Amino acid sequence: MRKTFLAELAQRSGTEVVLAGWVHRLRVLSHTTFVVLQDASGQMQCVAATPALAPLALSLDDVVELRGRVRPDPRSRYGGVEVDILEAKVLARAAPDLPFHASADLSAVGAETLLAHRPLALRNERVGAVFRLQAALLEGFRAALRRRRFTEIVSSKLVSGGTEGGANLFPVTYFDRVAYLAQSPQFFKEHGTAGLERVFETGHVYRAEPHATSRHLTEYLSLDLEMAFVDAAEDVIELEREVLCEMFAGLASEHAALWKPLGVAPPPTIERAPVWEFGECLERLRRDAGRADLVDDLDPEGERQLCALAEREHGVAAVFVVGFPIAARPFYTHPRGTAGAAESFDLLYRGLEITTGGKRRHLRSDLEASIRSRGIDPAAFAGHLRMFDVGMPPHGGLAIGLERLTAQLAGLANVREACLYPRDRTRLDP
Amino acid sequence: MRKTFLAELAQRSGTEVVLAGWVHRLRVLSHTTFVVLQDASGQMQCVAATPALAPLALSLDDVVELRGRVRPDPRSRYGGVEVDILEAKVLARAAPDLPFHASADLSAVGAETLLAHRPLALRNERVGAVFRLQAALLEGFRAALRRRRFTEIVSSKLVSGGTEGGANLFPVTYFDRVAYLAQSPQFFKEHGTAGLERVFETGHVYRAEPHATSRHLTEYLSLDLEMAFVDAAEDVIELEREVLCEMFAGLASEHAALWKPLGVAPPPTIERAPVWEFGECLERLRRDAGRADLVDDLDPEGERQLCALAEREHGVAAVFVVGFPIAARPFYTHPRGTAGAAESFDLLYRGLEITTGGKRRHLRSDLEASIRSRGIDPAAFAGHLRMFDVGMPPHGGLAIGLERLTAQLAGLANVREACLYPRDRTRLDP
Repeated sequence: MRKTFLAELAQRSGTEVVLAGWVHRLRVLSHTTFVVLQDASGQMQCVAATPALAPLALSLDDVVELRGRVRPDPRSRYGGVEVDILEAKVLARAAPDLPFHASADLSAVGAETLLAHRPLALRNERVGAVFRLQAALLEGFRAALRRRRFTEIVSSKLVSGGTEGGANLFPVTYFDRVAYLAQSPQFFKEHGTAGLERVFETGHVYRAEPHATSRHLTEYLSLDLEMAFVDAAEDVIELEREVLCEMFAGLASEHAALWKPLGVAPPPTIERAPVWEFGECLERLRRDAGRADLVDDLDPEGERQLCALAEREHGVAAVFVVGFPIAARPFYTHPRGTAGAAESFDLLYRGLEITTGGKRRHLRSDLEASIRSRGIDPAAFAGHLRMFDVGMPPHGGLAIGLERLTAQLAGLANVREACLYPRDRTRLDP
Repeated sequence: MRKTFLAELAQRSGTEVVLAGWVHRLRVLSHTTFVVLQDASGQMQCVAATPALAPLALSLDDVVELRGRVRPDPRSRYGGVEVDILEAKVLARAAPDLPFHASADLSAVGAETLLAHRPLALRNERVGAVFRLQAALLEGFRAALRRRRFTEIVSSKLVSGGTEGGANLFPVTYFDRVAYLAQSPQFFKEHGTAGLERVFETGHVYRAEPHATSRHLTEYLSLDLEMAFVDAAEDVIELEREVLCEMFAGLASEHAALWKPLGVAPPPTIERAPVWEFGECLERLRRDAGRADLVDDLDPEGERQLCALAEREHGVAAVFVVGFPIAARPFYTHPRGTAGAAESFDLLYRGLEITTGGKRRHLRSDLEASIRSRGIDPAAFAGHLRMFDVGMPPHGGLAIGLERLTAQLAGLANVREACLYPRDRTRLDP
């Protein structure tokens, strides 16, 4: 079967075509039946005499193949054409007892029902747009980095130990040993800077965190990058700002059709998002939000409040927070000055932390001392430390949670809605 | 630090620049010292008076920052310019006892030593080119599919059961349950065709296969696609032919610089690779290679022999083998005719199977019967089978092993050389 995509029919006026897709809408009048067909490219209204189609007993979400002729129709919402059906065939039936149809408004359908019928939900315009947006983000991230001489790497997700000690790891029975699912490609991407200078990876990471919040998944897709010749956290911040600005510009231009089904506007540029020191953030939260309870970290409420402050002052609900207390950061974090701060930053976006990044320690002796200061024997990281002998440049990087970024851009309340098959404390299916 | 990439110096003749990278080659004469610097973009010869540089005691693979002036030099192999060093600084030392240097010929260095110093090997031109090629393949695959209206998906690698029964699975301790690492995104991508019509994924898959061969990894990167409205295996074959032809053309044009360090020619087009029925392959192997021992599958030797035959007859060492016996294929495989063949194919490339694909069963009743015929209770696949109720189109797809494809194109004898951090029966580090 050589089908024509529906989006290409506007250029095929007057010709005979073979179409294939799903019955998205169906209107059966006494003389005429209108079938709105849907495929990967879009939708098209197809028309036949009701008696001619009746034997097929078409239903919503049936899979059909149509032979038809494209006819110009100035009233058509589908590129100025419609299709007169010459022949129709059902390739597969949708079950008669589906809990919803793809063309319905799904806002009242429960999350469990949507997941249990994931492909049907995906065929819905709004839900489909969420995952098309996600695909565009993945590609936008990679393209922006390729333009900046980053090389994509593929690192292993099966490791013999954690990057940050042993907490929150999923053990894997690996033949006669125990392996763990990697919490991040942190070490691998740091090694990558010693080999290729600038590397990125778009891969899964795993966190055995038992808490059930709207922000956490046990398995998520991490947009990771790491680059050599970084002086301070600000170098990484400015790279992220450029990359996100490019990605957002692409979303508004090349992916303009996504926003109507999503029901939200494309994101404004974050060009003017401020960079605030951690101490300054605490001070602002004290002064402007009456928060006196925060000391060495932010909390979700504080993240929302900071984004609101940034929006009020700079017109964009995004802020880079830099210089977190180093004690609460991983051992590889580079100090910032001598007052206990770290060359470490978060990007808060529309009230949610979507990025953590910073400058890392790149001298072996320095890294060993830091490991020791946490009460860990550096021998536990011998393989990792050896990589610092081969000419390890000063470096830094970041990780963006893809599902969180998708959720914030699409206006979703729960990160699970931005994950095709979410995994959490209780969920392994579908 | 705002460094200039070395590849951009040819356009900066006469100006002062800051450079950063690794000491790739070093030639110290009595009056003059020549430093060939390397960074992500390439190499550049930098020159200083020997006494001026002496205090730094530069060594190969040290990380340095240089301030210098770009000087035209018609004899230069580096874009017609050289750099006069004005100031030099060591950012990090390479250890004095490294087992090799990045600029060396690594063909005599053992695989274990290379892996134990992965970033140093990666800085080698030949090894670096292998992984730049891999990155180009990843991007080429995705770009070719995006042009054909495929949407990228991200599916879970943590599943409650295998796609093909319980064999060869890695168990994961998932809170108080057991999960498994996904052997393939097969079910998820099939579901994807019911939602988005055409989907692809570039993600890890896991096979707990204890055998140690030059072709197997326990964790590899699978280039997966699945598409709706497939009539037969040939539809998928022709798509793969188009996609690989586009990818190969891009390798020869946009990535032309990779081939010299790899020491091999860019791959010729596979436009003329033949499609041979499985029975025809057995017949050819009997006739032309004296093989009478093959009955229901090929073996590695047979795969090499078929590629040699294709090369002799069609000028390309690649053949699509279609119509394998269905009994040896997974339960979701669609039958081909009524004589026990499957709508299933492999692509053999330069002697190695790099792709498996085919048409799948898309009718729930049909799939259930197939599961039952293997002695399995369909209830074990209830969640999967439910997805066939929502309007599941006829569909098919394929999976290409990225490391195998990389190895075959780069002329590597072992798939481990095409994996940054290979995992097998005995290896979990680095």
